[in-house]
Amino acid sequence: MLEAFSNPRSVAVVGASREEGKLGHAVLKSLIDAGFLGPIYPVNPKADEVLGLKAYPSVKDCPGTVDLAVILIPGKLVAPVMKECGEKGVKGVIVISAGFREVGAEGLRAEHEIVDIARQYNMRIIGPNCLGYIDTIAKLNASFAPLMPRKGTIAFMSQSGAIASSILDIADARGLGMSRFVSLGNKADLNETDFLQEWGDDAETKVIMIYVEDIKTGARFMDVARAATRHKPVVAIKSGSTSAGTKAASSHTGALAGSDAAYTAAFRQTGVIRATTVEDLFDFSEAFTNQPVIREDGVCIVTNAGGAGVMAADAVEHAGLKLAQLSPQTMAALKEKLPPAASVLNPVDVLGDAQADRYGLALDIVSRDPNVNAILVILTPQIVTQPKETAEITARLMTNSPIPVFACWIGGALTAEGVKILTANHIPAYPEPERAVRSLRAMLDYRRWLQRPKFQPRSYDIDRKAIEQVFDAARKDGRLQIGDAEARAVMQALGIRVPGSGLAEDADEAVQVAEQIGYPVVLKIASPDILHKSDIGGVKVGLKDAAEVRAAFATIIANARSRKPEAEIWGCQVQEMIRGGREIILGVNRDPQFGPLMMFGLGGIYVEALRDVSFRVAPLDELDAREMVNEIRAIRLLRGVRGEPPADIEAIVDSIQRLSYLVTEFPEILELDINPLMVYEAGKGAIGLDMRLVLAS
Amino acid sequence: MLEAFSNPRSVAVVGASREEGKLGHAVLKSLIDAGFLGPIYPVNPKADEVLGLKAYPSVKDCPGTVDLAVILIPGKLVAPVMKECGEKGVKGVIVISAGFREVGAEGLRAEHEIVDIARQYNMRIIGPNCLGYIDTIAKLNASFAPLMPRKGTIAFMSQSGAIASSILDIADARGLGMSRFVSLGNKADLNETDFLQEWGDDAETKVIMIYVEDIKTGARFMDVARAATRHKPVVAIKSGSTSAGTKAASSHTGALAGSDAAYTAAFRQTGVIRATTVEDLFDFSEAFTNQPVIREDGVCIVTNAGGAGVMAADAVEHAGLKLAQLSPQTMAALKEKLPPAASVLNPVDVLGDAQADRYGLALDIVSRDPNVNAILVILTPQIVTQPKETAEITARLMTNSPIPVFACWIGGALTAEGVKILTANHIPAYPEPERAVRSLRAMLDYRRWLQRPKFQPRSYDIDRKAIEQVFDAARKDGRLQIGDAEARAVMQALGIRVPGSGLAEDADEAVQVAEQIGYPVVLKIASPDILHKSDIGGVKVGLKDAAEVRAAFATIIANARSRKPEAEIWGCQVQEMIRGGREIILGVNRDPQFGPLMMFGLGGIYVEALRDVSFRVAPLDELDAREMVNEIRAIRLLRGVRGEPPADIEAIVDSIQRLSYLVTEFPEILELDINPLMVYEAGKGAIGLDMRLVLAS
Repeated sequence: MLEAFSNPRSVAVVGASREEGKLGHAVLKSLIDAGFLGPIYPVNPKADEVLGLKAYPSVKDCPGTVDLAVILIPGKLVAPVMKECGEKGVKGVIVISAGFREVGAEGLRAEHEIVDIARQYNMRIIGPNCLGYIDTIAKLNASFAPLMPRKGTIAFMSQSGAIASSILDIADARGLGMSRFVSLGNKADLNETDFLQEWGDDAETKVIMIYVEDIKTGARFMDVARAATRHKPVVAIKSGSTSAGTKAASSHTGALAGSDAAYTAAFRQTGVIRATTVEDLFDFSEAFTNQPVIREDGVCIVTNAGGAGVMAADAVEHAGLKLAQLSPQTMAALKEKLPPAASVLNPVDVLGDAQADRYGLALDIVSRDPNVNAILVILTPQIVTQPKETAEITARLMTNSPIPVFACWIGGALTAEGVKILTANHIPAYPEPERAVRSLRAMLDYRRWLQRPKFQPRSYDIDRKAIEQVFDAARKDGRLQIGDAEARAVMQALGIRVPGSGLAEDADEAVQVAEQIGYPVVLKIASPDILHKSDIGGVKVGLKDAAEVRAAFATIIANARSRKPEAEIWGCQVQEMIRGGREIILGVNRDPQFGPLMMFGLGGIYVEALRDVSFRVAPLDELDAREMVNEIRAIRLLRGVRGEPPADIEAIVDSIQRLSYLVTEFPEILELDINPLMVYEAGKGAIGLDMRLVLAS
Repeated sequence: MLEAFSNPRSVAVVGASREEGKLGHAVLKSLIDAGFLGPIYPVNPKADEVLGLKAYPSVKDCPGTVDLAVILIPGKLVAPVMKECGEKGVKGVIVISAGFREVGAEGLRAEHEIVDIARQYNMRIIGPNCLGYIDTIAKLNASFAPLMPRKGTIAFMSQSGAIASSILDIADARGLGMSRFVSLGNKADLNETDFLQEWGDDAETKVIMIYVEDIKTGARFMDVARAATRHKPVVAIKSGSTSAGTKAASSHTGALAGSDAAYTAAFRQTGVIRATTVEDLFDFSEAFTNQPVIREDGVCIVTNAGGAGVMAADAVEHAGLKLAQLSPQTMAALKEKLPPAASVLNPVDVLGDAQADRYGLALDIVSRDPNVNAILVILTPQIVTQPKETAEITARLMTNSPIPVFACWIGGALTAEGVKILTANHIPAYPEPERAVRSLRAMLDYRRWLQRPKFQPRSYDIDRKAIEQVFDAARKDGRLQIGDAEARAVMQALGIRVPGSGLAEDADEAVQVAEQIGYPVVLKIASPDILHKSDIGGVKVGLKDAAEVRAAFATIIANARSRKPEAEIWGCQVQEMIRGGREIILGVNRDPQFGPLMMFGLGGIYVEALRDVSFRVAPLDELDAREMVNEIRAIRLLRGVRGEPPADIEAIVDSIQRLSYLVTEFPEILELDINPLMVYEAGKGAIGLDMRLVLAS
């Protein structure tokens, strides 16, 4: 689909310059130096040749077809050139020029203009305001990046050109190669989702590495990411996650950074592995590109230093991984081959005087143990240690290992040569066990993602008409807020149980309804203008007989009249009194990037004082809903503590899915809260006591 | 105090060997190579000279005094040599030899023997089973470490010789020098606390760096650490913190690793900065040794990459730090000097085309802003960036800055030279903003520690006699568990309010007591053999009149008889019924290393299901107690949510201090729980409902 970039037959450089130090010179030089095999056409009306290549006054003058154009002229001059490109039949344009959205309203107009032109001529744009595009497979470097990456299997995209420069430099220092590289810039046309889709199917790419500050099309990103991550790991940094960070993001790129909760949820729901630092981004990507994905949990540590083994074991546990339980055969074999003082438990301690051969013996034995699913080889440079030879024997034994192998040569100059040998042999060598373990954790998460059943959001046979009626009625009244009986009607239509209830216009009617429902009952003020009923004395609970109902009716109406004199009052809602059960809150908000963001938490103090909630983007499936429930810290309370029976978690999972279906089917729902959903013990269901819903205007 | 090691007049090497590759050769060579100025005596009965120095058959044959002896002969032969050292008047002995505690019972006996000899002759021992001792001030390298550190201001001690080797190698690679270095080995005599005390007063040492797997004398360590951290930062790794790690620790060193909660508490209470990785250990130490300690919060970021600025701002917020609010003057000055597109808010974005001079302008301006208490300079290698020159101008402007300055040159080969210049000029250069920010966090924690008032545990005028009587009575009965009325007597003696109550042997007496206390009351089985009263139906609450009390008495006694037929039954405890208030748990356990470890948490589900508790080691002072209370996640519940009044936090702080005093004054208390302590609203106090106490046998 994006062949114009990854495999163009010819490239024009509009703004190619003879002057060293100019971008138009640097980019043309990069193109030539990278060894692109097709014709390269410098476009410059004031020059006959640039860097030894014949130059042309305009794109249209270039001989033959031009698949790809790189544009470097000032922002204001880009639009007419884009038109020429369109007329010439150019398919892809890389607009390196700045002067668009990032400089304000006028720039934004200019940006819209070039996008319109591109659409008109069926061209795709990278940028504007970017570093360019590099493809090591096509030997194409259409960028002013500070260096050309070596060929490799990592594809990298970056919203920031500056970060991209650092990433290229670090990758080079770590000996990591790339297949494709794109600096997305302002993302006027092509964005992260387009390249994710492209690279997900790219046979040259084993790992996709992403740096973004915002995601443009949240829902499409999620669909594409769900598919891409089935084929290969996607590791992403999303920066601007805290409020301080977000402030910097807006002043920098004008990006409207979505709330971090939505990004966290979206990445988790689509199998995107989130890195929080550039170090993690590289550590994970290096692990994935060089080693097989771990099959299941079970890490074996081989070390010449007990203390380092302890730290590694700590790290394994902190990361939620497990040390492999070595088989009796393994332990017997280790006992036979290692000195008596060595530890044949895991961590396997080959002792401070271990030389390369002893490491070799231990590695050979533990790698045959079926309980061992990953190996971490640790070395500290002690007096007789052989960092180089140990690296060699590790590389020899572990190349093409079916399980991932990581190394930690902990030191400086003494271990440097060993680290080089390991890296050259595709065994990731981290300076500390903690980093190797974090990479293993990322691998195990990815393995579990691969094992996860396909995404299957459920459809429900809901009473769509009833819901539409409620919404229509509200809109007709000029109301966007829906609560009380109307909201309960929506819940009922959605298949969520609600308490028995009825509206009473006077005390007699209230008694009548109460007697139908059965005592005790609750009375609540019924008014379209009163949202927080308790605050104005508009709720009375535990009413046991007709007399209490009458008294409560009078008090509530009086309270409402005196505290909210302007409110329209319909009477009181009489409701079944719900006792027992545990209070749950379910909520939905619209995230600017991802749309409906769902929240789950235990009600009352848990949400307010402990902020113990979880988030997911709708639509979600049963597994998402289940994970959402299991994610809160207070989950033990739902599973039952102190001999209490467990709560009906299935009913919660069902309610979450129904809500997800509702907000997906009715995108006009802006906000929604069920608070509380009372959940009874397992098998006894849940009941929605109150709902508040806001429609989009 | 440890001058025999840090400033010996002469050194003997017992086991000095002519054979290359032997430790006895390596250590002697290290000593000679390091340039020690006093005489060095090889001791070897089979050689006349070793490495050009005259050798002696025994320590006793060495001419003149010998202050320090390094022993390298096999473990079994060490004791007689120690005796000779004693007779010669040696003051310090470094036993590098292995074959002691780490090889089992026989080795442990040998270790005790050499300690006894040392005591007899007033000698101090480093080791056995260690790498040795290095002192760059005395130009002494009495070790077989793989390299001699350069002279510097970091003192480092390590329980693990292997980790020590790595640390020396990494320090060298990072250009960090050391003042002193000790490998503690088995810590038969001198341990971490001794060196902490020594180095706390050492004018040559600015930072103390520690790697330990256990701490031998917890209480003394805390006293010494509290004093040392007033003089200089102490950064420590304690490994073996999780159960997996602890398992490795026991199989490796035979160390009985204390629970991590106790270490965490002890470090926090004494101002020791805890690092969890070797990287943090170095990052923090490098920051402290090269930069002034931050005065207060307020970080300014200067960057040529918006994205990196966002990541740094994120890291600042995640670390609980704040971005400095730049003054209007600063922003005006920046606006004047920087290009219009630059961001003069913090993060200050000098833009991608910034060269060294523009960084210089920005740094000069922000460093004068009184709101700026730390500066983080970030550079990504873009097309016109000058990593080297920017490092130079940063070094020139920021050397001797009164506020800490950190750099992040994010890259590989392109930034390497700049990093070298920064490091050489004592500006810590981290590869990522996150690491710089973690170091700043450590600095701010240390600043707050320095500002903290002196440790002042409070004494209470308690009824010591009453407590002793209860303990004596229990012991006389052969009981170690104390509960019910006895425990309440202890609480009362300690000054903690308890509910009105009395023991009733029969139903009549129960009614009588109830009428004295006032209805409603609680009845509880009174039996020395029944600890969990509710479990056997031994508690009835809310008894409103004489009839209910009689009925409850009968039921409780019957339940106890049938469910615990073997139990001795004293009757029922009649208690004031306590309503309202919030349930708190206070507990104490004995930690093997640190002694009384106190726990605080909200009662009920919070402790059991959410494990939301905090720990401190007793004795503690008011500030410790207050921090302990504020540390739990549910603290908002005590401060008052949803319009509830705040709880009486002062009463909790007081109760914690009283308990701390109790368990410090009565070391025979092994365990203790007040569960619950009912806490009323602010100003209304707290009341201990139930206590359980276990005495040491």
